[in-house]
Amino acid sequence: MARIVMKFGGTSVADIGRIRNVARHVKREVDAGNEVAVVVSAMAGFTNQLVSWTREAAAMHDAREYDSVVAAGEQITSGLLAIVLQDMGVSARSWLGWQIPIHTDSAHGAARIRDIPSEILVDRFRQGQVAVIAGFQGIAPDNRIATLGRGGSDTSAVAVAAAISADRCDIYTDVDGVYTTDPRIVPEARRLNRVAFEEMLEMASLGAKVLQVRSVELAMVHGVRVFVRSSFDDPDASQAGAGGLPTGTLICDEDEIVEKQIVTGIAFSKDEAKITLRRVADKPGVAASVFVPLAEANINVDMIVQNVSADGGHTDMTFTVPRADFDRAVEVIRTASDEIGYEEVTGSADVVKVSVIGIGMRSHAGVAAQCFQALAEKGINIQAITTSEIKISILIDAAYTELAVRTLHSLYGLNNH
Amino acid sequence: MARIVMKFGGTSVADIGRIRNVARHVKREVDAGNEVAVVVSAMAGFTNQLVSWTREAAAMHDAREYDSVVAAGEQITSGLLAIVLQDMGVSARSWLGWQIPIHTDSAHGAARIRDIPSEILVDRFRQGQVAVIAGFQGIAPDNRIATLGRGGSDTSAVAVAAAISADRCDIYTDVDGVYTTDPRIVPEARRLNRVAFEEMLEMASLGAKVLQVRSVELAMVHGVRVFVRSSFDDPDASQAGAGGLPTGTLICDEDEIVEKQIVTGIAFSKDEAKITLRRVADKPGVAASVFVPLAEANINVDMIVQNVSADGGHTDMTFTVPRADFDRAVEVIRTASDEIGYEEVTGSADVVKVSVIGIGMRSHAGVAAQCFQALAEKGINIQAITTSEIKISILIDAAYTELAVRTLHSLYGLNNH
Repeated sequence: MARIVMKFGGTSVADIGRIRNVARHVKREVDAGNEVAVVVSAMAGFTNQLVSWTREAAAMHDAREYDSVVAAGEQITSGLLAIVLQDMGVSARSWLGWQIPIHTDSAHGAARIRDIPSEILVDRFRQGQVAVIAGFQGIAPDNRIATLGRGGSDTSAVAVAAAISADRCDIYTDVDGVYTTDPRIVPEARRLNRVAFEEMLEMASLGAKVLQVRSVELAMVHGVRVFVRSSFDDPDASQAGAGGLPTGTLICDEDEIVEKQIVTGIAFSKDEAKITLRRVADKPGVAASVFVPLAEANINVDMIVQNVSADGGHTDMTFTVPRADFDRAVEVIRTASDEIGYEEVTGSADVVKVSVIGIGMRSHAGVAAQCFQALAEKGINIQAITTSEIKISILIDAAYTELAVRTLHSLYGLNNH
Repeated sequence: MARIVMKFGGTSVADIGRIRNVARHVKREVDAGNEVAVVVSAMAGFTNQLVSWTREAAAMHDAREYDSVVAAGEQITSGLLAIVLQDMGVSARSWLGWQIPIHTDSAHGAARIRDIPSEILVDRFRQGQVAVIAGFQGIAPDNRIATLGRGGSDTSAVAVAAAISADRCDIYTDVDGVYTTDPRIVPEARRLNRVAFEEMLEMASLGAKVLQVRSVELAMVHGVRVFVRSSFDDPDASQAGAGGLPTGTLICDEDEIVEKQIVTGIAFSKDEAKITLRRVADKPGVAASVFVPLAEANINVDMIVQNVSADGGHTDMTFTVPRADFDRAVEVIRTASDEIGYEEVTGSADVVKVSVIGIGMRSHAGVAAQCFQALAEKGINIQAITTSEIKISILIDAAYTELAVRTLHSLYGLNNH
């Protein structure tokens, strides 16, 4: 017997037929003697409809009212799944955020979960009842509904798993796990059986859109084992495979990963834009004069490269911002041109960030050197580099995305054979 | 300054454009210095969608889950209206049933309101804030959402009006008031300026579908003045007409009605079916043998006619049931045929009940006699009769509906001139 949380996203609950399929997954776990909490998203497209109504109502709207409106989507799904489960003979009831209650902070629209009392859910488990929990929502100190921001149902699931000390948090999604890279670009990409939390954090934030970053952070902090699997598998089939787990990817503490790879995956993000300032004065305080105005404009700067001074007095400076903020960032730099003092500002949204990720890098030197050499051999120019303990990121011309990703995927022995 | 409740139905909030129109009605009242609570229904068609999902999920479903699902509709509208009001510069916030809280009993799906604490709403009025309340919902003793049954937003509005001691409860609908009869049948029908609670109760239950019967009962018990008016009027126009009220119908205590009519309106209901038992034994206990099994089958019997015994031993018995229960009722009678003892059961769904309603009847004799005589002159056969202090109902062949209604409408001087 285990205690598990099962989370189903919008595509998995898009209509009553699919909700019935979800219920069969749940019934399988119940029949196996497990204690089960299910966390559900809104039906696919439903949240978008609600959000577009709030926008139509007013361009700037009260986040508390927005929360009350959009939380209705998960409310509907949780009730419908409870009805279907009962119809299949599974004892179940729905729980809204305010009923458990899932306490959040006051940041309506992007709230963080503070506390989830577990007694009431655990008590129902003992009575053999499945808890069907509306994801994405909680209750703020002002006694009003607070939502966790888009994709927040993953976070709800992990938080509930932590609260009830679940053995596992299963995230059912439309892919069957986490891959070494995007299989649409590299057909040889392999599904990973296990990924460390830290690796997943880098992958998620770099565009492998399987899991919300915040939910991975939360899982890491609380040591919640997260298992990514497909909701389109036959729900009734016995699926135990390698390591007692069905097909999927377990995101866990690195101690649980016996065979550590040096490099686990190659991620890439097209959501980047590059800005270069030509002939900036090479003097103390110039970096601040560039990045303080950007921070004040709420623009996130990622990679920063500053060349050594060529003529002793001036240098070039390159940095990246999210592509959506590109125009705004250029505007901020132009406005601050007097304080900064530069000859020219240029930029390009035609860049991509490719990242090599692997917890094994910590103990292996030369991973970065291999990367730079392999790309150079293909004639790919590296425009910027950032590194961390378990990640190397490079900025390149977008035209070389596929070539770079395939080259690196092969270089580190990730290809399927 | 007055304290008023404004209730808007599904058609009035069907999209953001109409919600904006509703907000203009609200703003007009706020600008006039009034304290305002608004009660809203779900957007037109939305509740039907939710209900059909619950039916698709399971034919028999847990009423508590049903309530949680369908209450989402009003939740959405209340948030959207609050957003639009704020956008117009009107201070407003949405309130869900569980937030006020609107306490109900445990009859999920058809709950009754027990108590609404008013302090929090009144406190917000003092701060100049409009309360936008999700109709149709409350919270049951089990801390779960309970809905009041279809059309329950009218009841929510009246209950809120009673709780906050409102001066008036304005029901905005797609008609501009209560008419002496259906204008589609009698073009000379007049809008009534005032109707007594008792009269409205008879009219509502007889098919004048302006207001839910339960809301009128509640208004009568608590003395809440209900004003029926059109949501399609120009919201910005000053509308004070006769008696300081705009165009509409005030439903109030009969003491408020100065010029009492003998007859106020002619209602009719096609939702009737007639069942006749031929040659029933004319002995004690036979009525019970007919009506006890019907009651046990939850079939409401309305009119009952028993002829005097023709041959000293047998009689004919006729009664009406809702048309939807007609087949089931005949089946019940057939099953109980041994106990009842009759020669033949016949029936017809081709009947209509026409009612003459007026509080003035109490003090005027001869109203019924006039009715019977006028119909006889038109050759209309009366199949059954029931009367109360303020109502005469007759059952006739459905083919004579229009003729009967027009004849009676004219007879009692209700025609517009």
